[in-house]
Amino acid sequence: MRMTDSDFRIERDLIGELPVPMAELHGIHTARAMENFPLAGRPVHPALVRAFGEVKLACARTNRSLGVWKDEPRKADAIETACAEMAEGRLTGHVVVDLLQGGAGTSTNMNVNEVLANRALGLLGEPHGRYDRVSPLDDINLHQSTNDTYPTALKLAAIRALRDLEARVLELQEEFQSLEKRFAHVVKVGRTQLQDAVLTTLGREMGAYAEAFGRDRWRIYKCEERLRVVNLGGTAIGTGLGAPRDFIFRVTDALRANTGIGFARAENLVEATQNADVFVEVSGIMKACAATLLKVCGDLRLMSSGPETGLAEIALPARQSGSSIMPGKVNPVIPEAASQASMLVFGYDAALTIACASGSLELNPFLPLVAATLLDGADLLARSCDMLRRLCVAGIEANEEQCRSRVRNSTAAATALLPVLGYEGVCGVVERARRERRSVREIVLDENILTAERFEELISPEAVCRLGTS
Amino acid sequence: MRMTDSDFRIERDLIGELPVPMAELHGIHTARAMENFPLAGRPVHPALVRAFGEVKLACARTNRSLGVWKDEPRKADAIETACAEMAEGRLTGHVVVDLLQGGAGTSTNMNVNEVLANRALGLLGEPHGRYDRVSPLDDINLHQSTNDTYPTALKLAAIRALRDLEARVLELQEEFQSLEKRFAHVVKVGRTQLQDAVLTTLGREMGAYAEAFGRDRWRIYKCEERLRVVNLGGTAIGTGLGAPRDFIFRVTDALRANTGIGFARAENLVEATQNADVFVEVSGIMKACAATLLKVCGDLRLMSSGPETGLAEIALPARQSGSSIMPGKVNPVIPEAASQASMLVFGYDAALTIACASGSLELNPFLPLVAATLLDGADLLARSCDMLRRLCVAGIEANEEQCRSRVRNSTAAATALLPVLGYEGVCGVVERARRERRSVREIVLDENILTAERFEELISPEAVCRLGTS
Amino acid sequence: MRMTDSDFRIERDLIGELPVPMAELHGIHTARAMENFPLAGRPVHPALVRAFGEVKLACARTNRSLGVWKDEPRKADAIETACAEMAEGRLTGHVVVDLLQGGAGTSTNMNVNEVLANRALGLLGEPHGRYDRVSPLDDINLHQSTNDTYPTALKLAAIRALRDLEARVLELQEEFQSLEKRFAHVVKVGRTQLQDAVLTTLGREMGAYAEAFGRDRWRIYKCEERLRVVNLGGTAIGTGLGAPRDFIFRVTDALRANTGIGFARAENLVEATQNADVFVEVSGIMKACAATLLKVCGDLRLMSSGPETGLAEIALPARQSGSSIMPGKVNPVIPEAASQASMLVFGYDAALTIACASGSLELNPFLPLVAATLLDGADLLARSCDMLRRLCVAGIEANEEQCRSRVRNSTAAATALLPVLGYEGVCGVVERARRERRSVREIVLDENILTAERFEELISPEAVCRLGTS
Amino acid sequence: MRMTDSDFRIERDLIGELPVPMAELHGIHTARAMENFPLAGRPVHPALVRAFGEVKLACARTNRSLGVWKDEPRKADAIETACAEMAEGRLTGHVVVDLLQGGAGTSTNMNVNEVLANRALGLLGEPHGRYDRVSPLDDINLHQSTNDTYPTALKLAAIRALRDLEARVLELQEEFQSLEKRFAHVVKVGRTQLQDAVLTTLGREMGAYAEAFGRDRWRIYKCEERLRVVNLGGTAIGTGLGAPRDFIFRVTDALRANTGIGFARAENLVEATQNADVFVEVSGIMKACAATLLKVCGDLRLMSSGPETGLAEIALPARQSGSSIMPGKVNPVIPEAASQASMLVFGYDAALTIACASGSLELNPFLPLVAATLLDGADLLARSCDMLRRLCVAGIEANEEQCRSRVRNSTAAATALLPVLGYEGVCGVVERARRERRSVREIVLDENILTAERFEELISPEAVCRLGTS
Repeated sequence: MRMTDSDFRIERDLIGELPVPMAELHGIHTARAMENFPLAGRPVHPALVRAFGEVKLACARTNRSLGVWKDEPRKADAIETACAEMAEGRLTGHVVVDLLQGGAGTSTNMNVNEVLANRALGLLGEPHGRYDRVSPLDDINLHQSTNDTYPTALKLAAIRALRDLEARVLELQEEFQSLEKRFAHVVKVGRTQLQDAVLTTLGREMGAYAEAFGRDRWRIYKCEERLRVVNLGGTAIGTGLGAPRDFIFRVTDALRANTGIGFARAENLVEATQNADVFVEVSGIMKACAATLLKVCGDLRLMSSGPETGLAEIALPARQSGSSIMPGKVNPVIPEAASQASMLVFGYDAALTIACASGSLELNPFLPLVAATLLDGADLLARSCDMLRRLCVAGIEANEEQCRSRVRNSTAAATALLPVLGYEGVCGVVERARRERRSVREIVLDENILTAERFEELISPEAVCRLGTS
Repeated sequence: MRMTDSDFRIERDLIGELPVPMAELHGIHTARAMENFPLAGRPVHPALVRAFGEVKLACARTNRSLGVWKDEPRKADAIETACAEMAEGRLTGHVVVDLLQGGAGTSTNMNVNEVLANRALGLLGEPHGRYDRVSPLDDINLHQSTNDTYPTALKLAAIRALRDLEARVLELQEEFQSLEKRFAHVVKVGRTQLQDAVLTTLGREMGAYAEAFGRDRWRIYKCEERLRVVNLGGTAIGTGLGAPRDFIFRVTDALRANTGIGFARAENLVEATQNADVFVEVSGIMKACAATLLKVCGDLRLMSSGPETGLAEIALPARQSGSSIMPGKVNPVIPEAASQASMLVFGYDAALTIACASGSLELNPFLPLVAATLLDGADLLARSCDMLRRLCVAGIEANEEQCRSRVRNSTAAATALLPVLGYEGVCGVVERARRERRSVREIVLDENILTAERFEELISPEAVCRLGTS
Repeated sequence: MRMTDSDFRIERDLIGELPVPMAELHGIHTARAMENFPLAGRPVHPALVRAFGEVKLACARTNRSLGVWKDEPRKADAIETACAEMAEGRLTGHVVVDLLQGGAGTSTNMNVNEVLANRALGLLGEPHGRYDRVSPLDDINLHQSTNDTYPTALKLAAIRALRDLEARVLELQEEFQSLEKRFAHVVKVGRTQLQDAVLTTLGREMGAYAEAFGRDRWRIYKCEERLRVVNLGGTAIGTGLGAPRDFIFRVTDALRANTGIGFARAENLVEATQNADVFVEVSGIMKACAATLLKVCGDLRLMSSGPETGLAEIALPARQSGSSIMPGKVNPVIPEAASQASMLVFGYDAALTIACASGSLELNPFLPLVAATLLDGADLLARSCDMLRRLCVAGIEANEEQCRSRVRNSTAAATALLPVLGYEGVCGVVERARRERRSVREIVLDENILTAERFEELISPEAVCRLGTS
Repeated sequence: MRMTDSDFRIERDLIGELPVPMAELHGIHTARAMENFPLAGRPVHPALVRAFGEVKLACARTNRSLGVWKDEPRKADAIETACAEMAEGRLTGHVVVDLLQGGAGTSTNMNVNEVLANRALGLLGEPHGRYDRVSPLDDINLHQSTNDTYPTALKLAAIRALRDLEARVLELQEEFQSLEKRFAHVVKVGRTQLQDAVLTTLGREMGAYAEAFGRDRWRIYKCEERLRVVNLGGTAIGTGLGAPRDFIFRVTDALRANTGIGFARAENLVEATQNADVFVEVSGIMKACAATLLKVCGDLRLMSSGPETGLAEIALPARQSGSSIMPGKVNPVIPEAASQASMLVFGYDAALTIACASGSLELNPFLPLVAATLLDGADLLARSCDMLRRLCVAGIEANEEQCRSRVRNSTAAATALLPVLGYEGVCGVVERARRERRSVREIVLDENILTAERFEELISPEAVCRLGTS
């Protein structure tokens, strides 16, 4: 179908005019941005769009309470409805500007403003583009600036993403806790620097993973407070220029009411507008979580290595065929995938840090990259935790026989005899075991150094997990 | 529309059975992978899919030449056609596995195999899933492994991406060369460490950017040779297991013929299969280009700062409205966008490096992350160069008046008098100029130290660009 | 002077024998490590050595309280004295093993053990090497392992380093606060994306820096709590193997008493021994501080650019001559140096993260790199803050005339008229100012739009800093 | 000993006066810098100082050839001697300015100038500080600037460092080649993704490491050409200001003659002065080498894991005692140390990249950080290669029995039967082996599928290394 002239509306900005397809919710500023930024080939993160909906709703409600549209309740209703729809994700597809845009987020804000204005117009039965009725700037963006709405929306989106991440980390922690119990009785050889060390249990190892993820969870929870301080109301560079003082004082309350999140207005709006170190901190917290994930995935890959010539202490659930040449080969694909997500989060953190440190004077122009890496990184981690839990950890089986036989046949077991034989005694046994290629167990039993019962007791899960000597 | 049972076919693998929609070109291995890797939410890079098409075509042709399908020319035709279609990008939408997959790329290879088999079946008038007629493994993947096809396809995709990048860098270089000529006569104050230094010309600055991009171009061109060494034919871990020696010796020739790129078989296939340092090198080269881009964008932002209270030596073309509060504000959005792309390339390089260094023994399981960051990074750079050239550099205007007035009024101009006045003489003039708040020009003219003509000659473009003193 | 045989003592370990110069406090394990790790060419960080002294002292006191040396009070005294000397930094020169050592810190711990044993022997009047009297292992390292003492000492050293950093950041914050007051009256043009935006004051900018450093300070303060959880008493892999339960339960109290820092024993010693994500978190916090520092230094360099053809709104104190060719050139060398320190901290964070994520199973073998980057990074930041404050910030002067003249002559000032003229009115004035190349002030005065008094009032510091409109 | 007034000389610069101890070779500019940059606590890299000596010597000889000191041959001799001494490393201890200095290297250049001037004065029998006789600026720095000497010296130092690195990489490559031969007969199970794959030999694995290091060597060799293009003669921002044209045209020849390295003058001196992307490229090459090193060290740690419950296919030489609790524990400390060096090189690369991308306009002020990370990184890699070769690789022993027994008892061996039994046949054998817990060998022999001789032949080194099937 060819479009005719009447399928287009003409919009204007400082640069000139541009035809926009009548059906589109976005306008000329969006059209310019689409032409200007053919970079990532992907639009801004959906979570950021939804968060913008919530921020714009708070602004609209505040403006309404100040009597802005007091003679036009239908218009105010329509604007609020449009904002609410965006907050629910129903207008996400209309925010089409590229992820990597210049301009400190202006294009995202303008795309949002245009979509909301045109959606409100639609709700009012007006054609798109009738900005004299509902204006992207004078209504939707009223008493606002990209300088304050963009960082606020980004913080809101980040809080929601972190809450989701926290929930996924918790589930993973709980899954490992359940393995801690299931494998509490499986004594095995512990390793430091990949070399046989002292005895431990598989349950303890799983418990350590649970504990580490618990710490990540706590950190993620705590860093939310950093994101709750927003500069909404600051308009241009935090001056509040153009906004009534009442708006500035009330809008954060409206956002708090809207979202149920304890936002607070930054005491120093100028400062809050120009600095982005908060995101470096939050990204650093996410990176710590990625480091835990990478470490744990490395351990799972190692412990499941084999099946015959590796450590083979656990078996991961088979998720897909591993090779077309090697019959029955199954690979640890889930931890491998999660590992790559972690590595990418490291890379995102590096990019985000440079972006945050490269702000100049009253503003950081690189917030779109900060948003992209922070929100994508949080998603990657949340999905990795969920994927790892559902498709791998929940199905881990212990190879008890392998663990047991190694404990019985390795000299590492000898360290369990330390409390009874002392260092010299243990050394003697170990040396003989190596020289004679016999197991520690054989020697201590044959020589009547210990009874079989005593030996078994010393390598029992209880003994192995007992802290120190009494 | 509800799907009925007949809309599905049942496929089998080592894990069990799964229904696949009849219409889909992909099969069970792809379905497993889609379930296993809900991570990035984006499929593998289209360029990798196209490159896989070319690699599979080379393999198919080699197999055919060895007589594999000698009694089934129509089948061989169908397979080759399917491969060719994929090489042209016409099957890209069917390769749907996630960007960040575990398994060293197995899922991508299997997705490709399944799509090609089913597409060939379609061409033969057979229903999808009739793998006894055309098999993803025994036909499409014949004499191959993920171990060799994946790195080979990645290298091919990277070469094509780098060639595109090189072309874009060249265009940008040429654009700056044209500015070098256009602004050759604009004398201005040069700055080191942001402090006024000696005189230079705007043309020279543009020429320096051209030169730097020229070096990037050369580097990008040179690193292609590193990517031309492939391990195709190596199958499992580079052993060539399962492949006839003739296949191994011919397949790289076929790929060379196919693609017109001078591929060579790695002498040590085992080594070429396990190591990924080549990608670290290539990514490092791309990162050098990103560093140039970030530096030049920073300069453009600085030199266009103002319009009134900044350096304001050049004006970038206005691309979009900059503010809803500040009338007429225009921001350097294009260099800002390109800067963010550069920073992201730095981050990608960090992630890629960790992935490449984390291979173990006979294989690197993290190649999917390598592919994602390398190909996306190359795209970002190519698009940035193109965007910067078209939308910014081509429209740069010199603010000649500003440059001239500063040269005349700054003490920095005094350094141009060094060849005539000597260091002590210049110091004297500078000191007086500062003390009396007069311009250097005024002093040397008033004091009859120089004639106006001589002064103008000393600060002429010719004098300023003259190398050293005769 | 040639050494004779009697100048050496022979020491033994599992590998064999080695002569050690009689005068040296270190022994064979140190000698092996010196031979093994000729890498960084620098010894471990002095702060880590001092912290080791404090940890060993806590262990010694706990052992003594358990009656370990109950018949040898002089020996116990000597050991405690040696530990105290190390804690005070008096034995630092004897810990000579390389910064980048393998073995998870074993060489550092053994170097410490040997130095303390020999120092104690010296105090007892015994010759070095009489380990039957005071043993590095059976006395100094009693009930300990590298697995627990090393991370504990590292955390202690990190806490002290962060406290120092916090103090330096506070001083810098206060210096900026004092500039905030000093420059409160200097109205200037604010800039976003390096383009003229709305009016602000120099004082506010300085206040924003103070606020940002205040946030860094808070973060640094808070992250100490993460470091206070230690695994001392855990010995091998957190089992407490070989240590009496009383020792395990008391030794953290002793460390707390020793250091005055609120250390707590990790509930899960096994976990606390194997994971290093805590350091990723702490390094991330430091990186946020480095990002602030880099941003602020960038601003200082920008605002002091000139002196004639740059922004030139402030002057940094001249610290050294800037050029041998350009008379009187002074460069912003102090912010440049601090910027490089920040960049290096970014790099350290990248290295530390990989190290922390690369632990395997029961231990992270790469803690020496973690220690090196964390402690060196903290030093660099602390010294940068101190250097920046003393040698730069404290001497910053405002170029009031420049700021004032720009406010009067730039159209940016027009935004200050928004509350009075409205958006349309301001646009009109700005357009005319640009077209006629006159200042905004001239136009509004000439046209009787505003009186001179009203204009001055609108661009006064009070008006500029007023939040929003009433 | 207290110093009296006569122990000091008074020196002057733009800032004022300062006493300098009479005995010191450095002067006031160095003294200022020492006060200004209390950052890293370490002086600039010794290799940079030596390279500066060579650069200054080339300048001095060129100046002499232009007749600069034509009436003062003794003075010219003294200057050349001083330069030569610095080039030989005999004056390194006198270049004391901090590694992380602001000012683009001015302080290093001035420290060098002062030391050379005073050393020349000493050689002439004059007291230090008699700059009217030999001047740091008017003699030593004559026709030069930090802008050109610093990058030139850095490139020269980098070339020498890379040559050393190349030699160390070559030795390591050769050591692995010798292992390739020594272990050519040791058949073992290859692993992909840590899972048992097809058979290979230990010799091939060692050969793959050799090959990878061979590629690193080639890359390091090739990147020297990038560093050979220098801007010497460019003086301020590449203009050649103040230098006679003859000097500019001859000085690179002198440097080439001096050093025996094929230096070339940059065609565009302005460009060569302002951009630092070359160092990003070189650092990227070094990072690729670090990635190889990290990968290989990871493999060595894995393959030597055990000794009883790990892979245990090789034994690394015992270098030091591994534990005070676990008898006889020996850890892979050498690969661990080299791994940390590699990680630090990754971090250095990140810092260097930011520094290189952060240059502005005519100069990059952050070259001192570039120098520090590049030269330290090259050292770390060279020392790591040397350490790894001497202390680890040269002493690696194969655990042939372990390798052989695994080949005989694992189902992975079955893939070696593929050429004979085909895929289906192999699958059948593997399934039975797993079900009946018997070895593949037992089954094929018991069932008369193969004779023992044929089986042995199929798993022989020759068969395993045969490329493909004939």
